[in-house]
Amino acid sequence: MKLSIIGLGRMGYNMAIRLLEDGHEVFVYNRTSEKSETLKEYGAKVIYDLKTIKNVLSTPRVVWSMLPAGDITEKNIEILSEILDEEDIIIDGANTNYKDDIKRFNTLKNKGINYIDAGVSGGVWGLKEGYCTMVGGDEKIFEYIEPIIKSLAPNNGYMYCGSTGAGHYVKMIHNGIEYGLMEAYAEGFELLKASKYGENLNLSDISKMWNNGSVIRSWLLELLEIAFKDDSSLKDIQGYVEDSGEARWTVNEAIDNGVSVPIISASLFKRFQSRQKDVFSDKVVAALRNQFGGHALYKKDRNIKKTSTGAGKVESANPDKRDFYGKNK
Amino acid sequence: MKLSIIGLGRMGYNMAIRLLEDGHEVFVYNRTSEKSETLKEYGAKVIYDLKTIKNVLSTPRVVWSMLPAGDITEKNIEILSEILDEEDIIIDGANTNYKDDIKRFNTLKNKGINYIDAGVSGGVWGLKEGYCTMVGGDEKIFEYIEPIIKSLAPNNGYMYCGSTGAGHYVKMIHNGIEYGLMEAYAEGFELLKASKYGENLNLSDISKMWNNGSVIRSWLLELLEIAFKDDSSLKDIQGYVEDSGEARWTVNEAIDNGVSVPIISASLFKRFQSRQKDVFSDKVVAALRNQFGGHALYKKDRNIKKTSTGAGKVESANPDKRDFYGKNK
Repeated sequence: MKLSIIGLGRMGYNMAIRLLEDGHEVFVYNRTSEKSETLKEYGAKVIYDLKTIKNVLSTPRVVWSMLPAGDITEKNIEILSEILDEEDIIIDGANTNYKDDIKRFNTLKNKGINYIDAGVSGGVWGLKEGYCTMVGGDEKIFEYIEPIIKSLAPNNGYMYCGSTGAGHYVKMIHNGIEYGLMEAYAEGFELLKASKYGENLNLSDISKMWNNGSVIRSWLLELLEIAFKDDSSLKDIQGYVEDSGEARWTVNEAIDNGVSVPIISASLFKRFQSRQKDVFSDKVVAALRNQFGGHALYKKDRNIKKTSTGAGKVESANPDKRDFYGKNK
Repeated sequence: MKLSIIGLGRMGYNMAIRLLEDGHEVFVYNRTSEKSETLKEYGAKVIYDLKTIKNVLSTPRVVWSMLPAGDITEKNIEILSEILDEEDIIIDGANTNYKDDIKRFNTLKNKGINYIDAGVSGGVWGLKEGYCTMVGGDEKIFEYIEPIIKSLAPNNGYMYCGSTGAGHYVKMIHNGIEYGLMEAYAEGFELLKASKYGENLNLSDISKMWNNGSVIRSWLLELLEIAFKDDSSLKDIQGYVEDSGEARWTVNEAIDNGVSVPIISASLFKRFQSRQKDVFSDKVVAALRNQFGGHALYKKDRNIKKTSTGAGKVESANPDKRDFYGKNK
């Protein structure tokens, strides 16, 4: 069918290709037009002014917004709502908070414009493997745009999840689970590496073996196989982990619903901590140990500060005599 | 090649079939002989007395012990060491602690008997999909028995992990990771179920959709698809979770190596707590809230006990007015 995609980032660009390859007529729009131009070879038609959407699409017009969640998406949908007519359909494929979906749905409803929320998983691999797509909104509108979703997703890889917000809600939970899974693998590999057998173990080979017949085989473990391939020690990667917000919402939802999520919340908090080089709460604990037990502590320059009580084991606290995991060398 | 399998439990029985189907000559032994008899149709030869191993196998004899880890395996290997000759090979496929492997290896070495530790993953699905197999011990002995391992495992699904204990060590870490993965999925599904969209979501359908193209697709999620199939609410299953020991060892190893494993340890501790109907630490917290804040607490029979200070919100604390997640109905 005819549709327009707004936003040609890592996701939007590849989604456009997948739709074009499946025979849809796709009008692409991007802030800068270079990316739009390169899509021409796949058969895309390029829009340089959002207003032209009104003329090139047939009614009800279908517009897929694939911009970063938050203000940018919000602004775009506001602009679209000025351009579009009653019965037209806006789909938001960003990682939008389901509460914003509900607000938007109501605002657009007043103008007679339909709104669909779509959570899309698959990352940079989606072009090849298909995008797992979770959809929320009016079921009849979902059915109308289903041919698009079907082209984006692999077989059985999409679902109508329920009323407005349900698509992004299910995607949010998906991402929360993802945080926990990643940390579980990460801890296992760190322990393996630190163990007495670690030096001789190739973590890429381990991942590959586990992916064949073991209980923990998964797509994430296949990605680890690649990540560990060149350098099991990951020495060129900093242990600094960003987050995109969905796990924060998941934990907020857990709190609002009184549901206990120790693994997902610990995974999120671990990411927060990964961004600090010198963790304040660790300073607090070090200071307290020194206060009550006279235990030695390290000064900022990593030299030893002898405790005032003199009770600290200064010798063993020498950082040069300890390895990464606190063992005496 | 010729070998004997001792122990025809869920794992040993199917492993024997897989080996027989791949052309090995398998002599099976089990405490009770019924299971051995049924293996005859697959071509197994049955041993009724362990001592006959000495005559039926060719040297160096290969014996695969597939008994429950711990005392039963220990005793069996002691008996085997009395029967076998120098250069014969004992393989332990149970979930043995790697420290026991090292002790055993040394004891058997004194008698000239070779010892291999093999961690085997795949559960009841291994017969069909193959067993992911992690092997430790002398590399030359591993190479000698490799044809057996190759038949048990799927393509690329086995690995020589290093010196004695390495196989069971890698399997232990595998199981620790498994605990974390299971809890991450479990928390996500509980939150989904408790959410405003939960009532209309079929968790089996969600699992199936996520398994097609999403980042969290995995074999465990495929099993959840089956588990949720008949009843998304799992109402006939008690939330009581056993553990088989490997995650305890993983956490112990983390402690011995000074490695932080918040997700794996929380997953293990959550299982411990799942076995208590009324958690003592929760009683302690309830008692303390009552002490300092006069907050209402529930008596054992779930009737309300008015606090001595009278400050507790007795009304809102009525359990009949609260749903499962503590929200007022």
